[in-house]
Amino acid sequence: MAIKKGKRTIFLENKPSIISSGAVVGKMEHEGPLGAEFDEFSDDSLFGEESFEKAESKLQKTAINIALKKAELEPKDIDQVFAGDLLNQCIGSSFSMRDLGIAFIGLYGACSTMALSTALASIFVDCGAAKRTLAVTSSHFCSAERQYRYPLNYGNQRPQTAQRTVTGSGALILERGKNHPYINAITFGEIVDLGVSDVNNMGAAMAPAAASTLMHFFADTKTGPKDYDLIFTGDLGEVGTNLLYQILDKEGIDIKCRHTDCGLMIFDHEKQDTHAGGSGCGCSASVLCSYVLKRMREKKLNNILFMSTGALMSPTSSFQGESIPSIAHLINIKNP
Amino acid sequence: MAIKKGKRTIFLENKPSIISSGAVVGKMEHEGPLGAEFDEFSDDSLFGEESFEKAESKLQKTAINIALKKAELEPKDIDQVFAGDLLNQCIGSSFSMRDLGIAFIGLYGACSTMALSTALASIFVDCGAAKRTLAVTSSHFCSAERQYRYPLNYGNQRPQTAQRTVTGSGALILERGKNHPYINAITFGEIVDLGVSDVNNMGAAMAPAAASTLMHFFADTKTGPKDYDLIFTGDLGEVGTNLLYQILDKEGIDIKCRHTDCGLMIFDHEKQDTHAGGSGCGCSASVLCSYVLKRMREKKLNNILFMSTGALMSPTSSFQGESIPSIAHLINIKNP
Repeated sequence: MAIKKGKRTIFLENKPSIISSGAVVGKMEHEGPLGAEFDEFSDDSLFGEESFEKAESKLQKTAINIALKKAELEPKDIDQVFAGDLLNQCIGSSFSMRDLGIAFIGLYGACSTMALSTALASIFVDCGAAKRTLAVTSSHFCSAERQYRYPLNYGNQRPQTAQRTVTGSGALILERGKNHPYINAITFGEIVDLGVSDVNNMGAAMAPAAASTLMHFFADTKTGPKDYDLIFTGDLGEVGTNLLYQILDKEGIDIKCRHTDCGLMIFDHEKQDTHAGGSGCGCSASVLCSYVLKRMREKKLNNILFMSTGALMSPTSSFQGESIPSIAHLINIKNP
Repeated sequence: MAIKKGKRTIFLENKPSIISSGAVVGKMEHEGPLGAEFDEFSDDSLFGEESFEKAESKLQKTAINIALKKAELEPKDIDQVFAGDLLNQCIGSSFSMRDLGIAFIGLYGACSTMALSTALASIFVDCGAAKRTLAVTSSHFCSAERQYRYPLNYGNQRPQTAQRTVTGSGALILERGKNHPYINAITFGEIVDLGVSDVNNMGAAMAPAAASTLMHFFADTKTGPKDYDLIFTGDLGEVGTNLLYQILDKEGIDIKCRHTDCGLMIFDHEKQDTHAGGSGCGCSASVLCSYVLKRMREKKLNNILFMSTGALMSPTSSFQGESIPSIAHLINIKNP
């Protein structure tokens, strides 16, 4: 049974718990500040495959297999898998599912996918629609660049406000109330679009959506930033993070002392020349499924907010002069 | 509370009921055999917009507004909207949501989207995560042709196995157990890919997925075709329908006397030269939200299966020589 409180927030009664997680990244992510946190990495950006798109499916399969192995489970033990990615028609996900034989619920939330997939997967476990579910997403710098911007060979220069798509994937497995971190509450976001149309500044487009979802959550739960050990956004980067602070400041909410952004954590953006930070579904997914959950299991963190943000434009909508519709979904993860 | 029975099927306890629905289509669909069933149509394929993509968002907005109006509701009365479409990054949906201010759960299931969105929306209502949800999807012949195949101006010829993407949208609203048709059970499908790679014969690619989901449902529920008034698939067209019959025949299951396909219902494919039938998310959506639900409300149908099928390839995966991963999701709708 789920209980809706306030306008947006859903509380789960049966402690859908994250019993296992896996994270896999590319070379540059492995060289970043969180390098030692991830389960696997590869120096080969093709991950042994023939194309970057197939490499992205391989990333998902690898993350899924790590999560399954850690929990000593097989695909047949999972009732449904919730997945999506940035590629057209989400082929990163549909092709990674091909050999699994698990019921598949396809999602599109751009970089908000990890919070979206985990939220839905936890509701299914909570309400009895599943015994065990899996949530996964991915992104790949090379497949994203050529689809959203320019082929890599073109050598396009990126402005300082641009974020770098993370090559990585994160997967997690949920089941009811064991001695693991669990999903306590969920706030699904609405589309927010304040008219930003610069696809090289998606942090600015997504910050208002992040602020909207966070304010809904605080209002619905009658809590504030200091009630949580840490608030993870993913991925606002430097520009978006500062904008989020400004928007919330005006509302009298100060999250600075409790906030970090997965896009700012994953790269050393001065040394690694990644401009405003990391982005892509795989950014917040790989950080959640390694760094964050590890610290929750170690009880260094016990009550956190994890909010993934997505920019839902397409190259076609941008060419047609449209601004960027954005969204943010939030989950509250607690230790038992 | 949801109850999982057998390997795949989820039974819902609290009768999430379809209290309202709206369907809107284009000129050719209006001229077809179901023309009089739809709530609205337009002779203008741009629906007064500047581009086919914006026209598709307009279709969704129109279907949503019809469903809201019939139920005497406003957007604020809906807790979450579940939507997706065929366009890259699902912009048909994200742009149609921009002004609604409803929490948005983005889906990607290609032509399986209407069953997928309705299934998730009904689980949310059933388990208490929502009082009221909305499920919607759309497709547009012109936006799909130029994205998946060729620009219309090119005058590409289509083989007889090809289906025609329906210009249309369907939306429905769910809430708990009133005197309306309700979602009794759900079977989510898995990815099935038997190696078909001809994007002009998607019926053949999707038929094995449809057979898989249907067989799971019959096995889980210990029922057979004759236990239902009618089984609607959408959209296998002529080729896919015959293949589905063949596959099921081998398993000793005969659905012919109880089966129809939304893709075969929506056009008179001899008179309208639509080859193997209709397709696209909007096909099964507009047929469900008009013809099917109307007959359920009139008690001419009382216990049906509605199964949407999706082909999850992208032009990129096809260019890379990949076959077509397919999926089918099923819902069992009953009268109280």
